[in-house]
Parts: sequence; C-alpha cells; structure tokens
Amino acid sequence: MRLGELTTPALVVDATLLEHNLATMAAALPGERLRPHVKAHKCTALAARQRAHGHTGFTCATTVEAHGLARAGLGEDLLLANEVVDEARLGRLVRSGARVTVAVDSEETVAAAAAAGIEEVVVDVNVGLPRCGCAPGAAGSLAESARARGMAVRGVMGYEGHVVGLDDRARRVELVRVAMELLLEAHDAVGGELISAGGTGTYDINTAATEIQAGSYALMDSAYGKLSLPFVQALTVLATVVSVSPGWAVADCGAKALAMDHGNPTIEDAEVWFCSDEHLTFAPRGAVRVGERIRVVPAHVDPTVAYHEQIHVVDGDDVLESWPVDLRGW
Amino acid sequence: MRLGELTTPALVVDATLLEHNLATMAAALPGERLRPHVKAHKCTALAARQRAHGHTGFTCATTVEAHGLARAGLGEDLLLANEVVDEARLGRLVRSGARVTVAVDSEETVAAAAAAGIEEVVVDVNVGLPRCGCAPGAAGSLAESARARGMAVRGVMGYEGHVVGLDDRARRVELVRVAMELLLEAHDAVGGELISAGGTGTYDINTAATEIQAGSYALMDSAYGKLSLPFVQALTVLATVVSVSPGWAVADCGAKALAMDHGNPTIEDAEVWFCSDEHLTFAPRGAVRVGERIRVVPAHVDPTVAYHEQIHVVDGDDVLESWPVDLRGW
Repeated sequence: MRLGELTTPALVVDATLLEHNLATMAAALPGERLRPHVKAHKCTALAARQRAHGHTGFTCATTVEAHGLARAGLGEDLLLANEVVDEARLGRLVRSGARVTVAVDSEETVAAAAAAGIEEVVVDVNVGLPRCGCAPGAAGSLAESARARGMAVRGVMGYEGHVVGLDDRARRVELVRVAMELLLEAHDAVGGELISAGGTGTYDINTAATEIQAGSYALMDSAYGKLSLPFVQALTVLATVVSVSPGWAVADCGAKALAMDHGNPTIEDAEVWFCSDEHLTFAPRGAVRVGERIRVVPAHVDPTVAYHEQIHVVDGDDVLESWPVDLRGW
Repeated sequence: MRLGELTTPALVVDATLLEHNLATMAAALPGERLRPHVKAHKCTALAARQRAHGHTGFTCATTVEAHGLARAGLGEDLLLANEVVDEARLGRLVRSGARVTVAVDSEETVAAAAAAGIEEVVVDVNVGLPRCGCAPGAAGSLAESARARGMAVRGVMGYEGHVVGLDDRARRVELVRVAMELLLEAHDAVGGELISAGGTGTYDINTAATEIQAGSYALMDSAYGKLSLPFVQALTVLATVVSVSPGWAVADCGAKALAMDHGNPTIEDAEVWFCSDEHLTFAPRGAVRVGERIRVVPAHVDPTVAYHEQIHVVDGDDVLESWPVDLRGW
C-alpha cells in the first residue's frame, strides 16, 4: 500500500525514525535498565520491537495493557505501575500466566492485590507529583503488610511526573535529585531489587533508579520535542486539506484525532489556529490546495494514539505495515 | 447488571435525564426542525431514540457516521455536514442506499461528490467561524457548478460555531443574527428547501434556519451547562477512587477517558486539579475512601465519547442497556 491510499486522519510512523529512537534508547539504557511504558503507544507490535532491542520487562498503566502484552507473548516481567482495587481484573491478570508485579500505595490496594492472587508488588511512593503513591515514611509498613499477606515485595516505584516535562535541564537534574532522595529513603525501608522511576525527559538524568519507565521516546511529541533530547519525531497524524479560504485552510483531523491536553498540535510551515472535533484550522505560510496531504505533530502522544485503531509504519511513500493499537480501553 | 459491576472508567447516561433532554428538544424543534448531529454521541442506539422522538434526518461529521446510520436503518435523510474529497469513501456512501446529502464549499469538493455519484448537495457557507464554508458571495456559482454536474442542490448550511458557546445570551442572539444574514444572502443565490445551521447553544435563537443541527443537548457537558439551557447533564464518567493522600485523591479516569480541549472536567463537591493519562487528581471537599465510585462531568462531550466503546444507560443503580459507541473512527 502507498501512503496516498491511507484513509485520513491516520497515525503514521516513519520506520527509520522509530528505529533511531529505539536504538538510541537501547544504547543508553540497555536491557533491563529500561522498562518501556506501553501507555505511550498501546501497541503490542511496537512493544515487540522494543523487546527485540533487548528490553525484557514492560510498564503498563492498565490491566488491559498488561493482558494484551501477556497474550502477545511479552509477559516475561510486567509492571502494572498503577493502583487497581478491582479484584476481578487483577484476578484475570493472574490467570494470564504472565509475571505481573502490581503497584500498591495503601492497605486497600495491598488487600485487593492479595485477594486477587497477585504474588508480587512494588510500593508506589509519592516523590513530588500529587497523584498516586504513599508518603515515603509509610512505604516500609505497606511492604510489611504485603509480605504478611504472602506477597513478595520487589522494591519501590516513584514517578517524577512533575519533572519529566520541564524545559530547563538543570532544573530537571535538581528536581530528580530531590525526588529520588525520597524514593531511596522509601527503598531503604522496603528493600527489594527494583527502584523503578523516570520517563523520557529524565531517562539520562535519573541514575538513582535501577530501571526507567520511559515510553514517549519511541514515537515522541511536540511537548518532549522541546527538551533537546536525542529522540526524533517519528509519529505524525496524516491529514487531508478539505477546505481553503483566504488566510487559512482546514484539514480533516481534529480533537477526536489529536489529544489537546498539552495544547494545539503543530504543522511545519503553518500556524495552527484551533482544533474542532473533526477539523484543524491553520494558516499555511505557503500555498495549499484542497486534497493535499499534510503531516500534523501531536502535542501529547499518549492520548492521541488512544483515539486511533492503527499505526501505519511507512518508509517514504510505502506503507510497510499497519499495526493495531490493540491495548486501548479498560 | 448493577452500576457497581461496571468496569471503570465508564460512560454512564441517566435514562430519565436523557429522556428529559430528548423530549424537551423535540417539543421545541419537532420533527424535521431538528436534524440531530450524531457526532456528539456516535451511537446508533441513541440516534434511534432521537428518531423515535420524530426527527427523521440526521447530521453527520464523517462518512463512518453516515454509513453506520444507514446500516442501522436510520438513513432516511442524512446530511454529511463536512467537506470530503475522498471519492472512494463518498462512493461507498452512495452504495449504502441511504439518502445522503453532502456539504460542498469548493470546486474540488463539488467535483469529488459528482465523481463519486453523490446526487444531492448543500453549499456550505462561512458565516463567521474560520473553518469550512465558502464566502457567501461564492455560494451561487458553486450551486451552479453542482447543478451543471447533474446534482440537486438542496440549499445551504452554515454553522455559527463561534457563537454557540458564548455565555451571554444577548450576544448569542446578536451574533446569530449577523451570521444568518450571511447565510440567507447565500441562500438567495443558491435556492433550495434547506437552510441548515445552529447548535445546542442557539437551538431556540436561530429562527432563520429551517433546521437546527444540535447534538450535545442529548448528553450535555459542563461547557454547555454554563448556558442556562433547559437540558440537563445526562452523561457522566463513572470512575473509581484508587488513591487517597492528605489533601487530594486520585480517580481512575484521565485524559484517555475525558477530552481536555474544553479544559478540566468537574466533580461535585471537589476541585479538579489535573488529568494525567489514566488519572484524575482532585481535592474532595469531604472525605473519600479508596474504592469509592465518583461521577465526573466532561467539559466537552463529543471527543470524550469518542474515547469509549460503550455508553451504559442507567436507572439509579440498575444498568438498563449498554449501547455500543459504533460510529467512531474514519
């Protein structure tokens, strides 16, 4: 299939640029030093590529992601880096046959994991982002509680989500240090081989963690694109210009094809005005014509991919493969 | 099934409140005076309810929406209120057997419709929103062009999208007047029985249009909730509290379950801090506990529904039906 035959809007990933990103990360964080987060792409075919680069474990945000990886034969060492109190869903994960380690940050989540038959947990620690995670001082007693229920505690995790997107590298360095002091304090009390943390924006800064949970590096987006990282924009949304007016044009991708939580997408040689449900209004710097194809760079890759059924892998004008985005939903 | 058995996050619509909205609109704009826009719910089961309230035509934003309505037996009079240059997709619509009228705003879209075998069009006119639509003065010659290619021109459409969301009703009234002057000028040149326009925020203001394209009124969202309309919030996202910290709590719905283009969602008795991919961090005014279910009101219903596979129709704690969101994708 040729690029021009794709129905728009369509997620398109450049095979060479994707390979560059995967290889660059695997060189920096080989094997188990990276636990790729699949929430960024929700695609087992892409996870298999990451596995081929030597990363044996994966990070998941949902039970559906973990299940899908297990079904795809990628369940060697899955970390469900999220709190789940639904024993039924956790129980199905246990029965998937994968090695699944679940994050816990409260007695309730410890109890749910134990009741579901989960055998391994990590204690999720709040390292500065007001989200999940227990206080560092509470980590030890949660670990005891988990062990008392017969579960192995593999260590701690703590995501410095308030740091990963900061433009200023010096500030990222400083705030990672502060965050990881908290995580190491918790780890002292908890023990275990895992100190899991980090993201694409701190992959080479966070040396305290034993493994980094980066995901966006594979496809990238314009938010991470501002950080002078060695990863390139491999993913774009292919769209068709459907209307041209004096001063602006409209493409057939909008807020149902591009997540808007990090702001507007970007287009080379154009100023993006706004997205409606199915339209992107932009001011091109040159001439555009109705029917022309354009490439749109999402501001935030994760919730953008979650709108699409497929990621098309392309080499120039050739569509090499079309990968199902098979880890969506809950 | 009981509400408590639903996997979260889940789209939940209150059957009584939905019925209130559908009946209120059908009383105000009976039969063909309303052409419900299905982009707001992407659900043929909900469209069938709208049909049962007497509305025989539907508005669509995508060919997939039009196809799905045709398959569901709701293809009596479909308006594809969007520009499409893909002859293959238009051709499939022609073969669906539905009555399909397509918006055109350029010679290119007229040519694509004609080449695909589309028999009826409306001329889409820019009435003030910088998006699709030709200049009012160009509408007549486009209609001539369409007729010269053998297509019937049913009239004009022009969406006052820059007006529908304005808080101040007096301003909505004034700007609808200005916008509809442009549309009526175009209609004078085009002719035809249709003057299609409007949305939920102007449904009772826009009396120039022969039919109103409102969609959000059925489910509603917090953006339209500010406009003192007679429609109530029928849709919420059901979520589970998965983590509680001193000062905030976290629910299992985030930017992959709630579109963020109109800002943060809202929760009764809580202040929403931010959404991450799979988390909503909020400060509850009272006590919450891990495992508790909460209801979250989306800021923008259309791209929120597009993230979900089902809409669950509930009466109190009973889940009456689960409707597939079967008009997603492209």
